[in-house]
This record gives sequence, structure tokens and C-alpha cells, in this order.
Amino acid sequence: MIIVVSPEATPDDIDVIVARIEETGRQAHLSVGTERSIIGVIGPDDPSLQDIFESLPHVESVHRVTKPYKLVSREFHPGASVIDVGHGVSIGGPELAVMAGPCSIENEKHMVETAIAVKAAGANILRGGAFKPRSSPYAFRGLGNDGLRHLATASRETGMPVVTELMSVRDIDAVCEHSDIIQIGARNMQNFILLDEVGMAKKPVLLKRALSGQIEEWLLAAEYIMAQGNPHVILCERGIRTFETAYRNTFDVNAIPLVKELSHLPVIADPSHGTGKLSLVTPVAMAGIAAGADGLMIEVHNNPEHALSDGPQSLTYERFASMMRSVAGIASAVERTLPGVWAPAAAR
Amino acid sequence: MIIVVSPEATPDDIDVIVARIEETGRQAHLSVGTERSIIGVIGPDDPSLQDIFESLPHVESVHRVTKPYKLVSREFHPGASVIDVGHGVSIGGPELAVMAGPCSIENEKHMVETAIAVKAAGANILRGGAFKPRSSPYAFRGLGNDGLRHLATASRETGMPVVTELMSVRDIDAVCEHSDIIQIGARNMQNFILLDEVGMAKKPVLLKRALSGQIEEWLLAAEYIMAQGNPHVILCERGIRTFETAYRNTFDVNAIPLVKELSHLPVIADPSHGTGKLSLVTPVAMAGIAAGADGLMIEVHNNPEHALSDGPQSLTYERFASMMRSVAGIASAVERTLPGVWAPAAAR
Amino acid sequence: MIIVVSPEATPDDIDVIVARIEETGRQAHLSVGTERSIIGVIGPDDPSLQDIFESLPHVESVHRVTKPYKLVSREFHPGASVIDVGHGVSIGGPELAVMAGPCSIENEKHMVETAIAVKAAGANILRGGAFKPRSSPYAFRGLGNDGLRHLATASRETGMPVVTELMSVRDIDAVCEHSDIIQIGARNMQNFILLDEVGMAKKPVLLKRALSGQIEEWLLAAEYIMAQGNPHVILCERGIRTFETAYRNTFDVNAIPLVKELSHLPVIADPSHGTGKLSLVTPVAMAGIAAGADGLMIEVHNNPEHALSDGPQSLTYERFASMMRSVAGIASAVERTLPGVWAPAAAR
Amino acid sequence: MIIVVSPEATPDDIDVIVARIEETGRQAHLSVGTERSIIGVIGPDDPSLQDIFESLPHVESVHRVTKPYKLVSREFHPGASVIDVGHGVSIGGPELAVMAGPCSIENEKHMVETAIAVKAAGANILRGGAFKPRSSPYAFRGLGNDGLRHLATASRETGMPVVTELMSVRDIDAVCEHSDIIQIGARNMQNFILLDEVGMAKKPVLLKRALSGQIEEWLLAAEYIMAQGNPHVILCERGIRTFETAYRNTFDVNAIPLVKELSHLPVIADPSHGTGKLSLVTPVAMAGIAAGADGLMIEVHNNPEHALSDGPQSLTYERFASMMRSVAGIASAVERTLPGVWAPAAAR
Repeated sequence: MIIVVSPEATPDDIDVIVARIEETGRQAHLSVGTERSIIGVIGPDDPSLQDIFESLPHVESVHRVTKPYKLVSREFHPGASVIDVGHGVSIGGPELAVMAGPCSIENEKHMVETAIAVKAAGANILRGGAFKPRSSPYAFRGLGNDGLRHLATASRETGMPVVTELMSVRDIDAVCEHSDIIQIGARNMQNFILLDEVGMAKKPVLLKRALSGQIEEWLLAAEYIMAQGNPHVILCERGIRTFETAYRNTFDVNAIPLVKELSHLPVIADPSHGTGKLSLVTPVAMAGIAAGADGLMIEVHNNPEHALSDGPQSLTYERFASMMRSVAGIASAVERTLPGVWAPAAAR
Repeated sequence: MIIVVSPEATPDDIDVIVARIEETGRQAHLSVGTERSIIGVIGPDDPSLQDIFESLPHVESVHRVTKPYKLVSREFHPGASVIDVGHGVSIGGPELAVMAGPCSIENEKHMVETAIAVKAAGANILRGGAFKPRSSPYAFRGLGNDGLRHLATASRETGMPVVTELMSVRDIDAVCEHSDIIQIGARNMQNFILLDEVGMAKKPVLLKRALSGQIEEWLLAAEYIMAQGNPHVILCERGIRTFETAYRNTFDVNAIPLVKELSHLPVIADPSHGTGKLSLVTPVAMAGIAAGADGLMIEVHNNPEHALSDGPQSLTYERFASMMRSVAGIASAVERTLPGVWAPAAAR
Repeated sequence: MIIVVSPEATPDDIDVIVARIEETGRQAHLSVGTERSIIGVIGPDDPSLQDIFESLPHVESVHRVTKPYKLVSREFHPGASVIDVGHGVSIGGPELAVMAGPCSIENEKHMVETAIAVKAAGANILRGGAFKPRSSPYAFRGLGNDGLRHLATASRETGMPVVTELMSVRDIDAVCEHSDIIQIGARNMQNFILLDEVGMAKKPVLLKRALSGQIEEWLLAAEYIMAQGNPHVILCERGIRTFETAYRNTFDVNAIPLVKELSHLPVIADPSHGTGKLSLVTPVAMAGIAAGADGLMIEVHNNPEHALSDGPQSLTYERFASMMRSVAGIASAVERTLPGVWAPAAAR
Repeated sequence: MIIVVSPEATPDDIDVIVARIEETGRQAHLSVGTERSIIGVIGPDDPSLQDIFESLPHVESVHRVTKPYKLVSREFHPGASVIDVGHGVSIGGPELAVMAGPCSIENEKHMVETAIAVKAAGANILRGGAFKPRSSPYAFRGLGNDGLRHLATASRETGMPVVTELMSVRDIDAVCEHSDIIQIGARNMQNFILLDEVGMAKKPVLLKRALSGQIEEWLLAAEYIMAQGNPHVILCERGIRTFETAYRNTFDVNAIPLVKELSHLPVIADPSHGTGKLSLVTPVAMAGIAAGADGLMIEVHNNPEHALSDGPQSLTYERFASMMRSVAGIASAVERTLPGVWAPAAAR
């Protein structure tokens, strides 16, 4: 940590600052400049120190020189993490993960049918929401445990691992029982209690970036999970909130390579939420893979105008299959593979 | 709801849209324009309909014409709500609420001493955090239940109602037992499970605006609480996240009069978080009251450079007292009163 | 400037960095830490150096410790600047400046009538746009030189100094001839050529903050003007662009006290553009003055639904007079005065 | 245009609104709903009408149903525009445009050497700044006309068309004489005077998106140029300003496919400014092409730590060549070609 001292500070003022540094068990290294003096704080970092030093009189600014996270960082774990999510699927290796399915689970028949359709088009992980975060208390909030059971049925029928959102600690056992990956949604990225709890679970966790989550906060949220002993964290960029109103969110493609540089964790691109606009899903999916994402998360619905949520950004089965063909070329250009095409028993 | 039809739509395409509207039990009112046709949807509003209509082919855009919230709106409840928070204090009436105290509760002695000091300077509600949301898992996260007890002690000693943050459903009984107002922090504004739970409690709730929470989302979060039967909701503007890096947050003063116009709920200004910068707290507190806020929430610490959190934005007792004198003139200009000055027994 | 060296850097790598520092004529002060080394750069600051040092191998980050502006800073000029704008009016002293008038100048009669009305309600500076920046090339772009003449007529009739926007270097002579304060609009805050030119003029300049202008960039834009020899710069906060769509812009009230702290220049609040919404103009005007602004800029139109631009945020004469009464109480609370009330000859 | 009437409006109030609509020469089509009435405005669109109708009493909101731009829209010109920029290079066709070169022109020798190097690596357009917009008045502001001459020399030596920024109307003749494409920088996107002037020139114009420019404003800026008779407009996405501080700007990849959908104009991706960070330039360049961009704009400098500006985001010759190899695979996946590799005479 570096402390910049205000120009008007006297040597006595500086002594007060140095004394407070030493009180924390660190050493102070003073460097007297022509206009301002600078004090280097030498010793173990602690995020609370910044606030403490900024509160001292005659301190102009405090600059951190080390990253506030450790377990998620590349420095700590130089190789890329590959996370086994069950049913023979891994995330972070050469094969891309393709998570697809409806925003909300609607019924068993629809879930199974969708699972078969997305697998046939090349998805290898099934998504579906049983617990839905909705801005309005009057909107449909998901089928809950019934939805989890439909998801599990679809998983058994197709052999695909499944991912579903967990909104509350009280549902953690049910979600763990019926799914393979626990999703933490954007609105819960800094629900620290929930992060602690999924950190104590053994399941892989898909951690979505908050609407206004800075990269550092997102990685610290992942650190929460890892600090509780769960190393199986997958990050998901799903668009941020900006001044632009032409789309629901702005997919932050810069985040993909930066997070891969700062962290060893895999990163998934979600162009469905990242754009909120049907016609942009395919090109932004392609962009995400080109930028280095380890996979995609895509909302698919056979009949978007009857979907219980997120219809406007859901691809039909045909458009999803077409998207997969477009992504295939990009995947090959970046030396990644897509899951093999699969045909359900009925079609074989 | 108004549906704008794409220019290329044929009469048959429009029939499909009309049929889907009628399927939802609403009537369609078609208006054929020179360039585009417009369809008015007549019947009860439902937030899910927008997604459904936007998913239809040949729909260019869908415009909502009614507000998505009801219980929190001025149309539903034209008079301003005044919320009794106990110990003879109300929020939303002519007397301003002044919530003051440390960011984190540190120990009983410090809490009681601070309570006496802030009351002496004119505060009428005591704040203090027992459960602290922290970006880093390695930062101090609060004293938990011990903190709640210290807060209750300070409340008894000074006769002030207290407000403290609830982060998890599991702590709701303890927080209700020891405090008078439950705070929902900015990061939990859309933790819908927590909103439901405090909606079922009988306590007043202080609902902070999220870092990137739009006014409509904030009011819908309040609607969650009211929809569960708890009408005692107090809103708190605490700054939003913007591109500006000269302060931690940007206090959104526009929000104060707009929320007072759209809703009957009282609104508190939090210039400590709204600026994150000591020298800005007093002028922004004055601005908040001038704009119509029903009170203030201020971080106070006798020794900011030893505070366990948020030192850089905490006022000392002296600065807090000075701020209160500055606010007094503004309060009087907007025909509001400040709580009367109080002297502890020892000083009488 | 402080350079943080990457952890993997060898002593030889550090030597390369030190050599590049010395090549610029500065001294390098090395401080070896447990995890990273830090190099203080000692000598005169130059904004280009940051880019140069950030481009060096093994440099992790570069932190500036001095402000990049000088002439506009409080360190350079500790007292507040008071700017004489003619006709006996000054900005930055105890009397607040109140600039009022229509968004666009419409005709001579309307301009004179408006001038009389706003002066009667307490304005002391007349505003009116002859050259209008419009997002669309098909919108009304102002009366140009004719507008300037109408403004000058209204100034003569009422004895008020006038402020009007300059959009192009080619109109600088006409604008200087007919007005007392040259306004640089938000979209031209970083039109550096225009800044240079008004820097060479002798007139006071009202410099609006850009929609996404950071405080530092805004002060550097003022520095451009002062660096050319024109010290008469008045800043104007007019709202920034954020994610919030409930208002056209978000008035950044934090900016008012921060700019007063960093700079000696006066600051005007523009709640008309800062909100874009009629019902918010008065409370935000009050907030701006409470936060320390040196005056207001308000759009006034007797018949907003016939205004050639910005009708929705324009106050009628009555609402403007009412706003002035509300502001008067706040002004008095912060020990500022409003211009005296004035009656036109006809009414005396 | 659709006008939503407030619930409290009486039939007489509605008559007033209808009368004002008819006064503008449009027809009003009233649709009485259960909660609110809606009025469709039928007749030619005019951007000023929105303000007028919003200013009327009892108008709750006004919704535009047509786009405010015409010449730039796909509806007006369904096929993609291909723009001939001279020297046998076109932008918008199957071959991608690759604009490369230094941020600032430094001297003739360096410019020619860089031109040869970037052409050898596959660039087909040379970039270089003679007039530099700089936040600080004390930073290097470019070589001016000398720089233009060096650029022209490098163009002659390599046969490449050149692009350079125009900041002021006074330099338009010099810039037109020495360059093939006039660049309008992000800070001048809404410098409407400059847009008018380049609209009257015959040269192709590269129009960068403003830091907080909404898609609609960007297209309207292009409309300014086209409305003056110059159809040769090329758009350039260069990153927007958001809350994220981990990079200088956030490259908005959503904008690429959306602008291609709304407009027939070609779009260039600038990952150098879009990230401001060396390690992100290549992956974001790949993402831009994958999303459908018609080309790239890349800052290249053989010795970034001696560059006069933008060193931290400049690629060396080697990194640029390596980027081109990475982009080649993506280009091929989206059925675009890169300019052929070229060897200077000396190397042949």
C-alpha cells in the first residue's frame, strides 16, 4: 500500500501517519518528494487498512499495490482450472460448454422436449429456472421444487448435467439434490451469506456478474466461495448496466480476456441476458467465443411468445441450431471444439 | 400497453398479434397509421405481458402505460405515509429523522458513548452495523449477535430507536428482537427472498437503493415488502454507481423529489455512502434536506482512523454536531424541524 | 508519480525502468517491498509520462500523485474567484447569480417580454440560445445572428448581462459583440479548439460539464481556457448521463462541493437540464444552492407547449417566481443573498 | 407518436391536447382505455413534436414510434453500403478494412517505417494523428500540418489510403488534401458544426462513437453528415464509458450487430481505444470481427514506451502481425477476407 501525503503536512504530521502504520504491525518506508512525500507500507496486506489510512489527517490518497483476492488469482494458480460438472462434461478445457434451455421451467413434458432439442443441436448442459428473481412481486416466480424435479427428469432422459439458480439458503439442499451446477444470479453476486453457503457445498457454482459489478468485486465474490473450501467456481459474464437503452444490458466483451488473465477460473458468455434482444444473441455469442470464453449460456424456447419469462431474447430450436453452426466456425478458429452432435434414441 | 407494429406487417400478421392479445383475455384496439399501425391493449395490466408481446413476430416495440407498482404509489395512497418507529419517533412527518452512529458496532462501551454523543447533537435514531456486507471475505464482517446486544443496550441507555442491517433470513428473529428498524442494504435491494421475509415481519424496514437500481426497480422492491402485508417501508437514497471516480458513489438528488412524487413512502438521504468522502457529507446532507428528504443517515465515529470500517466517510462527534447546525437552517427553510437537542443525565 | 513494479521483475528489469525514468530528466527513488517494488518518480510532472511508464515492461501500474491542472486549482489560488460579468453583476460573491430565460430565442418581442418577467422575479442574468446544438439535423437549430440581436435588445431594455452558447469559432466575434458571457455547452466541453479560442477572448466563459465528463476532465477543460490567458471561467453542473431513465440526466450534487474544494472557480447549478423534468426543477435548484452553488441557470418560457425547444423542463413565469421564493429561504440558510426584486418601468 | 393521457384528465382536458395536435397539422386518433386514454398522432414525424406534446398539461408520456433518422437507416437503403476510400480499397465489402499506425505522427522516417511494417503485416489503410485531442492543455497536441505531410509521404511510399482526425473546421482543406478518410473523434461526435462541414466535403468520413453516445445519437450524427450530401460515412465503435475502472473504456460489442441491423453503413471496431489495455487488444479485435464488424482500427508503435501518446495500448510490429494471424481465422469463419500480405520493394 502506498500513502500519498498532502503537500501541507509537516514532519510532525508525517510522524503521526508513520506511527499509525507501525501500530498495525507494518513498516513505513518514507520517500520525500519535491512536492509531496510518499510512504510505502511494507508488510501483509489487509483490505481494511485502506480505510484506516485514508481516515488519517494529511493523507491525500492511498493506493493499493496488491490484488485483494488470492485463491482466484492466476498468480496463485497459474494453470487454467478445468471443472468437472458430471455426466462426463468439463468446463474450462478445449471443449466448449454450451448451456441451453428455457428461462423458466414450465412443465415436465416441455422440459424434456427442450432438453432433447438443445442436445440434438449440440448443447452439453441443460439450463432451466425453478426459482426466478423477478423485479415485480406480481410476476411468475417459478415452479420451485416441482421445477427442480422436471429438470432432473430431463437430465436423466438426456444424460446432460443441469444448471439452475439458487436464490435462498433454504433451498440449497433441494437444488444440490436435483442439479449439477448451482447458479448464483446477477442480483445475488454480493449476497455474501449465499456465497458462504455455496462455498460450503461441494457442487460447482456458476457465478454471474452483477449488473454493476466491477471485475474486482466479481472476483472477490468468487473468492468468498473458494475461501469456504469450494474451488469449483465458473464465472459468467451476462452484460452490465450502462447508459445505453437500445438493449437491456451491454455485454462486456473486455471482461472475458481480462478475467482469464487475472484468474484461473473458466468464464462463460451469456449473450441472451447480455443483449436482451433476439437478433443480437448469435453475433454476440460468436464474439464471446472469439474473445476466449469457455462456453455459452443461451435461452431457448420453442414458442417464445408463450414463454413464461424472457421470451424476447429466447431462440427457437431452429435459431439455436443455426447459432451453433455459426459458433462452430469461430470455435475452430480459436482451437476449441464444440460438443459432438447427438441424436435422441427416437431419431436414431 | 401499446404495441407498435412493424411497417412491413400485413393485415394477416396483425391478426396474429390481435389473436394473441385476445388469448390473454384483453381487448385489442387497432389504430392504422400512415407508416405503422398501433394496437392498444385494453384490460388489466400484468408485467409478464410485455415479454409475451415483444416476442411476437412483426412487433416493433411495446410501451407500458401504467406503473408496474400499486401499493407504494401516490395514486393508491395520496397522502404521505408517516411511519412510527417506536420510542416516540416517526418518519415522514414534519420532524426530520436523523439516524447516526458508527458503520460497525465495535463494543458496548463505544456504542453507548456514541449513542450519547449523537443524541446530544440532535440525532433521534441510532444506527450501527452488527452484520456487515463486505466486498472481501477477509474483511471484518461485524460482531453479529453480540453487536445486536450492544446496540440494544445503547438504545436503552438513550431511549433512541435503533436501525441495523439484516443480511440473512436466519438472523431475522434476532434483528427484530434487538432493533426497531430493519435495514435492507443496497446489495440486497433485489434479494427477493429477504424482501418477502421482512414483508412478513411487523417492523419498519429501511430499504436502501441498489448501486445500479432504477427508481422503478427500487419502488418494486418496496412493493415486494408491502405486498406481504408490511406497510412500514422507508426508502433510503445512498448514491448510485456512475462513471465518476472522484467519489465512491454519486448521490442522486433527483431521486428524492421524484420518489416523493411517485410514492407516499418517506425517503431518507444517506450522504455518507452517497459521497464516501468526509468533506462532502455536510453539503450533500444539506442538499438532501433541501430537495425534500424526510431525514438523514450519517456515519459517526469519534476516531475515524481506528474505525473498523468506513472511516474515511465518518464524521467525528464535533463534525456531526457542526453538520447538524448547518442542516438546521435548511430544515427551517423547508419548514421541517430537527429533533430537539438533548443532554444526557450526566451533563444535566 | 509512483510506479508499481510487477512481482516477477528481476533487478535488471528494474534497471531498465529506472533508466527510462532518468532519460526523462527525473530521478527514480526505489523502494523494495516484500511482494513488489515501488519506484517514486521525483521531478516536474508531465501528463504524458504516465503513458510512457505504463508502456514499459514489468510495470504493473502507475499512480499520479499530483493533480494534472494548476491554474484552476485551489492550491494555486486559495481564495474564491469572483467574476465580474458586467452590468454590475458578479458571480462567486455573496449574491447568487440567477440566469433565466428561454432555451431558444424565438423573436424580439418574446425575448424582451421574458427578460422583463424573469428580472421581475429576481433573475440577474438573461439566458437565451441563438445557436442550438440538436441531436437531429432536422430539428430547429436556432435563429443565429438574429437571435443574438434580440438578446442584445432584451439586455438593453432590462440592463441585464446576457449569456448565450457559442458552438463554432466562426461565430465568436458576433457572440462576443452581443453577449456578456460565452457559454460552452456540454457537448463541446472537450472541443479543445473552441476552448483555446474562448481562452483568447476577454469575455467570461460559462463551461458546462459534459454528459460523461469526469470532474478532472472538466477542470482540465477550464485549464485550457485559463492557459490561454482568460481567467474568467464559471463552471456549470448540468447533470450527467447514468443508467437511470426516469429523468433525462442525473444532477450530480456531489460535484458542487467537490469542485468548490478543488478549484477557486464559481459553480452554477442547472436543474433544468440536470433533471429534464418540470416537477424536479425547483427541489433540485434548492439542493444545488444548499450544496454551495454560486447560482442557478433556469429555462423559463411563458408557454412551454409552444416553446421551440426544451418545453418539458421550462418553468412558466409563475412557476419561476415561485421557485425563486423557495430558493430564497435556502439562500438565506447558507448566508447567500438573491438579487433584489425589480419592477419594470411600466409597473412602477 | 403516441400520447398517453394522465388518468385524471377530463374530456375537456383531452380536447385541449387534440387541438394542439391538430394545430401542428397532424390528426389525432383517440383510444379510450379503462385506466388511461391514448392518442395516436397521425402525420409526418418531427423530432420537436415530442417536446411540445410532453409540455402539455395532462400528458403522462409521449412515445415515438418512428426512428428519428432516415438516410442512414436500413429501411431507406436495404443493401449494405460499400465505401470506396481510394487506392483500390473499399470498406463494407467482403474484404475487411485494417487501419493501423501510430496514435500520433512523430516524424517522416518513423511514419514511413511504420507504414511499411503495418502493410507488411496485412493492414490496408494507414492511420496517424496530426491533430490530437488531449484532456490536458499541457500534453503533446500533434505535429499539425507537418504531420499531415509525413502521412501523405507514407501513403505515397506504400500506396495505402490514409485516415487522420479533423478537429477544427479551419483545418478541413489541409486534411482533405493530404488524407483519404477524415476521422471525427469521439469527443466531436456531437460537434454539429464540424459534422455539417464534413458533410459538405466529398471525402469519406470515419465517425467515432462518443464516450457516452447512445446508438440513436450516433446514427443521428451520421445523419447530419449525410443530410449535407456526403453519403460516405463509416461508423467506428471505440468503447464507451461505464462504471468499470479495470479498463479505460468498455468496448460495446452489442453495438456492432445492432448498428448493422439499423443502418446500411459499415462499422469498424477499434479495440485499442475500446480497451486501452495492450493484452486485451487482440481478443477484442477477434470479437469485433466475429460480431460482424467491417474492419479494425489498431494503434501500432515499434517502441510503445517512447510513443508520444497512447503507448500502453499500442501493439509492436510483432504483436500486430501476431494479431493479424489470430484475426485471419475469425475472418475466415465469418466469410470475410483480410487484405493480402504485402512485401515492400526492399524485401522483394
